[in-house]
Amino acid sequence: MDLKLKKFFKTQFLKNKGSFVNLPVLDGVKISSSSANLYNKKTRNDLCLFYFENGASHAAVFTKSKVVAECIKWNKQQKTKKVKALFINTKNANALTGEQGFNSLKTIRKEVSKKLNIKEKEFYFASTGVIGEKFPITKIRKALPKLLKKNKISCAKSWLQAAKAIMTTDTIPKLSKNYFYINKNKINIAGIAKGSGMIFPNMGTMLGFIFTDLNISNKLLKLALKNNLDSTFNAISVDGDTSTNDMVFLFSTEKVKNKKIISAKAKEFKIFESKLNKVMLSLAKQITIDGEGASKFIEIYVIGAKSKNDAKQIAFSIANSQLFKTAIAGEDPNWGRILMAIGKSNSNTNVSKINLKLGGQFIFKNGNISKQYKEKKASKYMKGNEIKILINLNLGKSEFKAYSCDLTHKYISINTDYRN
Amino acid sequence: MDLKLKKFFKTQFLKNKGSFVNLPVLDGVKISSSSANLYNKKTRNDLCLFYFENGASHAAVFTKSKVVAECIKWNKQQKTKKVKALFINTKNANALTGEQGFNSLKTIRKEVSKKLNIKEKEFYFASTGVIGEKFPITKIRKALPKLLKKNKISCAKSWLQAAKAIMTTDTIPKLSKNYFYINKNKINIAGIAKGSGMIFPNMGTMLGFIFTDLNISNKLLKLALKNNLDSTFNAISVDGDTSTNDMVFLFSTEKVKNKKIISAKAKEFKIFESKLNKVMLSLAKQITIDGEGASKFIEIYVIGAKSKNDAKQIAFSIANSQLFKTAIAGEDPNWGRILMAIGKSNSNTNVSKINLKLGGQFIFKNGNISKQYKEKKASKYMKGNEIKILINLNLGKSEFKAYSCDLTHKYISINTDYRN
Repeated sequence: MDLKLKKFFKTQFLKNKGSFVNLPVLDGVKISSSSANLYNKKTRNDLCLFYFENGASHAAVFTKSKVVAECIKWNKQQKTKKVKALFINTKNANALTGEQGFNSLKTIRKEVSKKLNIKEKEFYFASTGVIGEKFPITKIRKALPKLLKKNKISCAKSWLQAAKAIMTTDTIPKLSKNYFYINKNKINIAGIAKGSGMIFPNMGTMLGFIFTDLNISNKLLKLALKNNLDSTFNAISVDGDTSTNDMVFLFSTEKVKNKKIISAKAKEFKIFESKLNKVMLSLAKQITIDGEGASKFIEIYVIGAKSKNDAKQIAFSIANSQLFKTAIAGEDPNWGRILMAIGKSNSNTNVSKINLKLGGQFIFKNGNISKQYKEKKASKYMKGNEIKILINLNLGKSEFKAYSCDLTHKYISINTDYRN
Repeated sequence: MDLKLKKFFKTQFLKNKGSFVNLPVLDGVKISSSSANLYNKKTRNDLCLFYFENGASHAAVFTKSKVVAECIKWNKQQKTKKVKALFINTKNANALTGEQGFNSLKTIRKEVSKKLNIKEKEFYFASTGVIGEKFPITKIRKALPKLLKKNKISCAKSWLQAAKAIMTTDTIPKLSKNYFYINKNKINIAGIAKGSGMIFPNMGTMLGFIFTDLNISNKLLKLALKNNLDSTFNAISVDGDTSTNDMVFLFSTEKVKNKKIISAKAKEFKIFESKLNKVMLSLAKQITIDGEGASKFIEIYVIGAKSKNDAKQIAFSIANSQLFKTAIAGEDPNWGRILMAIGKSNSNTNVSKINLKLGGQFIFKNGNISKQYKEKKASKYMKGNEIKILINLNLGKSEFKAYSCDLTHKYISINTDYRN
């Protein structure tokens, strides 16, 4: 992430009590991070363990890619109501590693269980890093005793270390929190995420882990996650590439003594859903802002579409267009590329009805350049860190908001040189 | 285009008698190029006129984008069997220019007709350049007398000037030719094209103009163009962005005295089709090689697919992946990104059946890294100018070959700064 954007971001998220703010101690969650020296840099943590002593109910979504990592295969096999551990490593995605990769997970589970006694079905894994390289089980195994030291996995005050331990090309750790009350019980929501490249999530996303202490049924936990996905993690794109490892987990320790929420119609469920949305959206935006090489954050809001699918297709056709993204990087209000991207998307559109606004200024109106349009004003707007584009198709009532970032020289540098 | 690639390209195409070779005088085709100073550079031609005094039968395909240029709208209205003129300008795409753009075409037709007497329906237009800027009719109108000077539009020996006049960010003119005999009649095929960015043609492509003197029915001319599109102009991608102006024209002056070809089963038609394929493929490859900022030419060959659509989707999912293209630019055999791109495409695949070859070397075989795989050998191969990838899905008999180029710093430089 570009320095100017970083500053902007910090101010923004401090305002929203997002990142750069301590996450709460969450009853029932224990965290430990450590280094297995996977980056040949001992100062950098690359392992992270979340431990739920009394178990946690949970909801999860995984990548829809047809090529998936071994950890995804493992997680999909588990069918337990209460999970006890989530183990995360970086540097190696454990994807296309075959038996060697899968058996390594078995080994880790066994080793951890010597100390914590967790069954296979109570154990989840997440990995991120290079695809197709041998899984570094020897190094990880050697590092486990340090990770499992009693005083390390003691309480949930290590959010920031955990968020740092799961980073790859990320330049900032991603954290978000929120809370609300049921009667006098304070309910906490805390989440961390990572992701910077290969970001165009299809159902799950990079890695997102969200925790709450709310007493809620498993069914409703799943529903809350599902209902919020489309407008948050599934609304972002850095480069249009979908990872083999995407996943979002929502855990609940159910430690708060609120009356268990069992109806989707309950007022408390609606509040939880909306608070959860804020946490998920904040994490998703943080991933976009920290997109590889990004210097600008882009919001593309498509309204007046015939269907939600049309709105989404158009928003992402723009969000993923290389030409659009380089124009943004060049601070050039080359709006023709926005219309080009609308045109190439396979959606219902009628050029003569399209209205296009850039940062509040009309550019294109009913098939013609707006008479009020001032390119100088647009050029000035493009120098900002946050670019907002509004498209009204004037064909219906559906809408979609997508988040993206620009395509810069730094993205090329990072990704031509990724494995070195 | 990168210098090393340019050298490689020149040798390749000289070998194949492609570009850098004079195109033949083609009876019935007259060409003139000139400068309207649209680039504020008088030494650079930006207008080009093809004139068929006795008319030419023709076939055409246009962009499938829903946002199309005024010239596309114009051309689609014409319904004549014999066309007499094709007028091309660069610098301005005449897209999203509304009435001002469309009326400009009327003006040009009228002015040209004062000298050459051509009806509206006998007149075609092509434009390429920036989208959404006012069409520079005053400058063009002023330049017409020079373009129409009698000695300028005299004969078809000005192919190279024409190919140069239609360039935008192209770094080399694109030409190709072929010929065959029917009895003792020599049939010529000559084509020029342009395109460097916004290249992911959907039906038509950037600009491609192909000419022949073969005596052939209109219906078969259309069929020959249609049959060859999928494997040529529709098989390339530079950046996954589809232009508002894509078009391919195939003209025939029918000047050769061969017996008119009227059956698709005729041996002569098959020969014409295959010779035409060579010309179209050569032009399409030249566009890819000259992709904005390209330093490497990539061939992605997907075989063993369940359907042709699957093969095509997978080939383009790879060809359009930013992460894959930057890895190629970085000369990094990061094959995990190839499998990632296969996984994200919405096609029938079974990882455990996929075979992947890079430059003839097996990397991935039946769901595992090949035991014979030597990364050093792959790294050395990646330093070449032409990268060949072969994927066998082992699910069926369908296949597709796509052509692409890498994503480099130069692409970013060109496109952040395009309108300056």
